[in-house]
Amino acid sequence: MLKAPKRGFIQKEYENRLSKMQKFMYKNKVDVILLTTQVDIEYYTGFKTQFLQSPTRPWYLLLPLEGEIQAIIPTIGLSGMQGTWVKDIQTWPSPNPEDEGISLLTNSIKNLMKRFNTIGLPQGHESTLRMPINDYERLKINLASYEFKDVTHILRYARYIKSPAEIEKIKYICEITSQGFKDLPTLLKLGESERKNCQRFKKHLLDLGVDDSPYLISGSGSNGYGSIIMGPSERILEQGDIFIIDTGSVYDSYFCDFDRNYAFSYASDEAKKAYDVVFKATDAGFDACQIGNTTSDVYKVMNDIMQKAGALGNSVGRLGHGLGLQLTEWPSNTLSDNTPLEEGVILTLEPGMEYVEGKEMVHEENVLITANGPVWLSSRADENLPII
Amino acid sequence: MLKAPKRGFIQKEYENRLSKMQKFMYKNKVDVILLTTQVDIEYYTGFKTQFLQSPTRPWYLLLPLEGEIQAIIPTIGLSGMQGTWVKDIQTWPSPNPEDEGISLLTNSIKNLMKRFNTIGLPQGHESTLRMPINDYERLKINLASYEFKDVTHILRYARYIKSPAEIEKIKYICEITSQGFKDLPTLLKLGESERKNCQRFKKHLLDLGVDDSPYLISGSGSNGYGSIIMGPSERILEQGDIFIIDTGSVYDSYFCDFDRNYAFSYASDEAKKAYDVVFKATDAGFDACQIGNTTSDVYKVMNDIMQKAGALGNSVGRLGHGLGLQLTEWPSNTLSDNTPLEEGVILTLEPGMEYVEGKEMVHEENVLITANGPVWLSSRADENLPII
Repeated sequence: MLKAPKRGFIQKEYENRLSKMQKFMYKNKVDVILLTTQVDIEYYTGFKTQFLQSPTRPWYLLLPLEGEIQAIIPTIGLSGMQGTWVKDIQTWPSPNPEDEGISLLTNSIKNLMKRFNTIGLPQGHESTLRMPINDYERLKINLASYEFKDVTHILRYARYIKSPAEIEKIKYICEITSQGFKDLPTLLKLGESERKNCQRFKKHLLDLGVDDSPYLISGSGSNGYGSIIMGPSERILEQGDIFIIDTGSVYDSYFCDFDRNYAFSYASDEAKKAYDVVFKATDAGFDACQIGNTTSDVYKVMNDIMQKAGALGNSVGRLGHGLGLQLTEWPSNTLSDNTPLEEGVILTLEPGMEYVEGKEMVHEENVLITANGPVWLSSRADENLPII
Repeated sequence: MLKAPKRGFIQKEYENRLSKMQKFMYKNKVDVILLTTQVDIEYYTGFKTQFLQSPTRPWYLLLPLEGEIQAIIPTIGLSGMQGTWVKDIQTWPSPNPEDEGISLLTNSIKNLMKRFNTIGLPQGHESTLRMPINDYERLKINLASYEFKDVTHILRYARYIKSPAEIEKIKYICEITSQGFKDLPTLLKLGESERKNCQRFKKHLLDLGVDDSPYLISGSGSNGYGSIIMGPSERILEQGDIFIIDTGSVYDSYFCDFDRNYAFSYASDEAKKAYDVVFKATDAGFDACQIGNTTSDVYKVMNDIMQKAGALGNSVGRLGHGLGLQLTEWPSNTLSDNTPLEEGVILTLEPGMEYVEGKEMVHEENVLITANGPVWLSSRADENLPII
């Protein structure tokens, strides 16, 4: 087993993230970027909290074109934010429905309107704004003399390329989760529910050293499952079932995201064949994970194999995606995505197909792209459908 | 121990939720309400998934003034949504950045503009819109001839009053988490990190029957902790520390939210006194949880006790809040909130105070309001600071 990587990052990592973004901002003529989500705030500050599960209080981060990051946050977060590299912190006593930080935010943004008179905001695909729409519209009125610009493309591109320290964390969470899946056949019990089996797996992953498995779903059914996003359910596992667990476990905020399939006692030839097809599709996708190729190249080689094998369909809509501080990150492996692969990118390869009506087979592995070609981060699944 | 309540709800529960909301919509002259978040979608449909952790795909639910709920969702969710009581389901193959459900959504909303020509949306305090801002603005242009109305107040009020079946679930998660805290002193280890101690607690909670503890934080320090939202950290627990764990565990999607404090080996008189003050404040808050009182009455009695005892401040900004499908729900126990208490309301009582500079003491319990007065849902914390 790998040794657990050091938690957190050295300050230089955050300085690099900011200065890289400031270069993009200059190119895109943006004076300041406003960030509101847990993930965006953590990426630029190191501020790590589970507290944003509470929807009550908005949190604001400003990335200026020049100079230091500014945090405008509820008082409850002050001591935590003081523990990060951020020095410019303003707070307000929250909850305060009459003015939930908007006056402070307005003034701070105005003071940063020095060059282009533009405010960058993630507004595009896969983004959300973690603040009430009324407050957003208030802010737009307060700042009506400036232009709001969509900066989704530069924000997602910055996070697309992982640093060596980020890669270490993802490699580690992939490794311990791979170990968990290797041990899983000895933990699974027929005659018990999906939920009980998944709870046993979650406890085992905690024992192995994951911080948590915030995403741990399952599907099961006679000769196959019909969904990969709904469980774990109370359904009792039986002989002849095919059972999938898909997990996004985390170490120091970084995710793995892959799955494993198991058959109980026996499996149909069509299920075994479907497993073989998606296994080979994953291999082909892996081979296509080369610098110079795109996500669409990766998609095509995987999709070709499944089409030739008579796939009835795919409800997932893509064959893998980016991975990092979120379970799924930009980009998507689709026909039209066409994102060039670069060194330091981590993708999931997730070929899936319907092989008989209402039954899917989905594989998933995590892959790092390097100058010397692709590297598996998850330990490769068994070549044949494991029958236990 | 209570028996685990039956999972899910009978269909009548969802019918009641919809018809109650439709009455509010009629009063507020709203033709349709658009919902986008996991919690809002689950509340009206029973659609339960961890999948919305992936930010890629938006999900839409329409509550019409008359007739049935409409779901407009990515194809990946079809089989899951078909398992709920929702019959009117439209899907699109997602991800599709060019049109991520917006055409379908536009047409469906137009077809529901029958009476008032208004679209309701949660836009106010504590709300977020789980869709890209660009798509929201596109939708507003598509529907420019209709009025967008903020319906935060009716949505939050509907969830404020818990049904008997909801109360059973919250009572149960409070009870098993209370048992976990009772067992915790035997699980805590000096010389180990906050994180290791919290992981042991999490596994114990899983053993006791929680589905998960998505919120499990801690704070510690010599003679007190300085934050209740940041841990668990790698800090090693030592003699003379005061240690808090705050947990939001879930059973069948319903949360508890309360904390416990412990001292290792010894505690200062000021820490013991602070514990006593917030304990008594909690009792006073409990006594004030009467129908006819408001959240502000509850706030005042708790705050008075802490002020008289010389509290130096409170960074949390409120002394408790609503609880249910989210760790924190509307309303807030603050001076100006003034929400009338009603039968079936569940609140947290969360008095906290700074007792020496940089050191806080925070208690929290969960309380149900009934016609016969308040009922503790969490087992009351020890009357004196437990020293272990």
